[in-house]
Amino acid sequence: MIDQETAGRLDGYIEENLERYLDELRQLCAQPSVSAQNLGIQETAGLVSLMLAQRGFDVRTIPLTGGYPVVYAETPGQISRTMIFYNHYDVQPPEPLELWETPPFEPNIRDGKMYARGVSDDKGHIVSRLAAIDAVRAVTGRLPCRIKFLIEGEEEIGSPRLEKFVEENRGLLAADACVWESGGVDPAGRPQFYLGMRGICYLQLRVKTATKDAHSGLGGSIFPNAAWRLTWALASLKGPDETIKVAGFYDDVLPPSERDRQLLADLPSYEESYRQIYGLKGFLKGLTGVDLRQEAVFQPTCTIAGVTTGYQGPGGKTVLPAEASAKVDFRLVPNQDPFDIAEKAGRHLNSEGFDDVEVEVLAQEHPARVDPDHPFVKLAIDTARLVYGAEPVVEPMVGGSGPMYPFVEYLKVPIITPGVGYFGSLAHAPNENMQISEFLRGTKLMARILAEYSIS
Amino acid sequence: MIDQETAGRLDGYIEENLERYLDELRQLCAQPSVSAQNLGIQETAGLVSLMLAQRGFDVRTIPLTGGYPVVYAETPGQISRTMIFYNHYDVQPPEPLELWETPPFEPNIRDGKMYARGVSDDKGHIVSRLAAIDAVRAVTGRLPCRIKFLIEGEEEIGSPRLEKFVEENRGLLAADACVWESGGVDPAGRPQFYLGMRGICYLQLRVKTATKDAHSGLGGSIFPNAAWRLTWALASLKGPDETIKVAGFYDDVLPPSERDRQLLADLPSYEESYRQIYGLKGFLKGLTGVDLRQEAVFQPTCTIAGVTTGYQGPGGKTVLPAEASAKVDFRLVPNQDPFDIAEKAGRHLNSEGFDDVEVEVLAQEHPARVDPDHPFVKLAIDTARLVYGAEPVVEPMVGGSGPMYPFVEYLKVPIITPGVGYFGSLAHAPNENMQISEFLRGTKLMARILAEYSIS
Repeated sequence: MIDQETAGRLDGYIEENLERYLDELRQLCAQPSVSAQNLGIQETAGLVSLMLAQRGFDVRTIPLTGGYPVVYAETPGQISRTMIFYNHYDVQPPEPLELWETPPFEPNIRDGKMYARGVSDDKGHIVSRLAAIDAVRAVTGRLPCRIKFLIEGEEEIGSPRLEKFVEENRGLLAADACVWESGGVDPAGRPQFYLGMRGICYLQLRVKTATKDAHSGLGGSIFPNAAWRLTWALASLKGPDETIKVAGFYDDVLPPSERDRQLLADLPSYEESYRQIYGLKGFLKGLTGVDLRQEAVFQPTCTIAGVTTGYQGPGGKTVLPAEASAKVDFRLVPNQDPFDIAEKAGRHLNSEGFDDVEVEVLAQEHPARVDPDHPFVKLAIDTARLVYGAEPVVEPMVGGSGPMYPFVEYLKVPIITPGVGYFGSLAHAPNENMQISEFLRGTKLMARILAEYSIS
Repeated sequence: MIDQETAGRLDGYIEENLERYLDELRQLCAQPSVSAQNLGIQETAGLVSLMLAQRGFDVRTIPLTGGYPVVYAETPGQISRTMIFYNHYDVQPPEPLELWETPPFEPNIRDGKMYARGVSDDKGHIVSRLAAIDAVRAVTGRLPCRIKFLIEGEEEIGSPRLEKFVEENRGLLAADACVWESGGVDPAGRPQFYLGMRGICYLQLRVKTATKDAHSGLGGSIFPNAAWRLTWALASLKGPDETIKVAGFYDDVLPPSERDRQLLADLPSYEESYRQIYGLKGFLKGLTGVDLRQEAVFQPTCTIAGVTTGYQGPGGKTVLPAEASAKVDFRLVPNQDPFDIAEKAGRHLNSEGFDDVEVEVLAQEHPARVDPDHPFVKLAIDTARLVYGAEPVVEPMVGGSGPMYPFVEYLKVPIITPGVGYFGSLAHAPNENMQISEFLRGTKLMARILAEYSIS
């Protein structure tokens, strides 16, 4: 444990330099970097490289064939344990623009929050990591360990090239510990850690039964109907009992361990807030409590995310649709494989007679888990308890997906998720914002973890 | 049979006065009357009333509570057999405007066709009927029979108040024979008659499972999904074998008679043109020939006309939809009842566990049949054979729907369908048009039928 005085000096440094970091963040957020729209990517990669270079990092901008470059940085000369930071410099599209109270790329501070697209996801985290490193260097006179940064530009489009990049560069990226791109506090202000993410296999199904729509009176009994073909194909994937009917879908599922169940039992309940926020009458299968929490993250899913076909306007139109398409989102749990699942889904449709349904893969990511009892994870949780003065919330797994897998699989690092986010960050939505008080707390935690890591 | 000379004078009158009728049609088409948009309805009802009054009809504009007025007209003083003409003065919306070569409400003649919204459906038919009556009166010095007109303003929105109007006014509307609103020639130029229309029960299904969409990673395994509920509800209505699974759906179906089969066998085959126009590989159940023709019109249907839910744009969005809706179009054959079918569909959904699916009725019309061997029908077909010099095409039933039922049920009239339309009329589509040569032939046929009817 570092002494109280050092801890106080770290906090003091961060508080005293807050304005400088907010300026740096403002500058970074004023630069659009929308990967989905190829907007400002190179400029932002350059800006992030500069911020790292100014701090003495060796920085390389590594192009990815067919994609946006990775900014890679490392501290020169040190031989010691290594901590790698994973972040991303791209942001979600800002649309719908009319819902923003101030323009998305004109950072604005009001009511103790900075508003801008990307201010929480993930630019606030980048600046917070740098501020924490600055603090440790300023207070202790040196860096606590060798530090690497991997900052990608494709996270918001599903990190399609990251897994291969990490696999091929595992020597370059080798590390002993990893700090994930984001984190924050729960609605009660408790620091949150998540130790796993579900994988994803996101498919688009398309049926075309004719070259143009027909009048439903003409073709209703004799023409094939794309809307029906798609409906039946979808219904073949999952029934009202929620069991996914793709052959072999559950083969590789690992059930949660006793330790996982224990962590789930320790979590606060969000049932009431979900009921209120989403206006739900109840949850699937009538589940509640630990069983509901387990179902939410350790059960794989098959979600229809969208369907479009035929006439969708007001009133009736007597049309027989020639084309129909659906988006289908499978969330995967350890040890399911998104490539295996895509193949099984395609085989299933064929074997059910839906060879007229074309399947396109839109995104694939593996699930990943972090050992909740790894000393580095324990160090982060214990430090968070001190910094926040509250019992950390430790989620063995979250329902969402992210590119954790290559870090776990190829770098074999434990991963922690401290951060500056909060329940109202509105990441991906209009009026994305960051609470400045959470920026301070998240940065203090990061600095303290760095300092503790050097002596642990 | 009228003599050759009278026939020749009728034709001559129509040819000589063609320009005058085209002027009258131009004036009528220049007046928008879009029932779906409440555009120009009263003005058009007034214009049509004036055209009838100028010809000596007693005209009344009869308001329909909550709807658009019916223009009713009859010849005064005559006591004889009565022929009633059913037409409509409303038209389909002209959108999309950018696909029109000339503006939809600025009638334009080119290449022997008049282009305008409503020129074929149904304003050309109204003017053609009037021209035929004028010709008979001019050539024979009198009207051949008592004539009534029922011209409604809601046909293009499904004639929601017509059935009740006819039922309640069966004394006023009493007649011995009926001329339907439209007709024309088939692609080979043969006059077409259709002696029945399927009914319709058009439903909208809606599911709402939450007050807002959720992230699919968050809710995928625990939140109800409106898209799935709707998919399963739809799949419960009909399976890939095309059998409709609503309990009692087929109870009242009357199979076609031997006479119907014989009429179907006499029809030309449109299989190849459907294959080409719609790019079809084949027809449902592998049917061809008479079996296909029978299936097309004597089989009731359940058609998904549209589905909308969740994200429908390019790429993937990880959303769990809170709302989903579908349009479902049932075509009904004699003696199915659209009110009974709506009730059975609702009961079916409830009994299958889909009480979260809200059902709204968007349109209901009964199926109707005309006796192919009625003397009036025979007179029309025989006259058409003479006027067109070609064997008429007689369809015992068409797949589409229209308000024939109240005429058959309450007025108990035989119905014929001579007309000025053709395969390329583009009714309901941009660049709706009428071939002037078909206007001439259709009007000559109508005049000749009137003249024959007076002596038959």
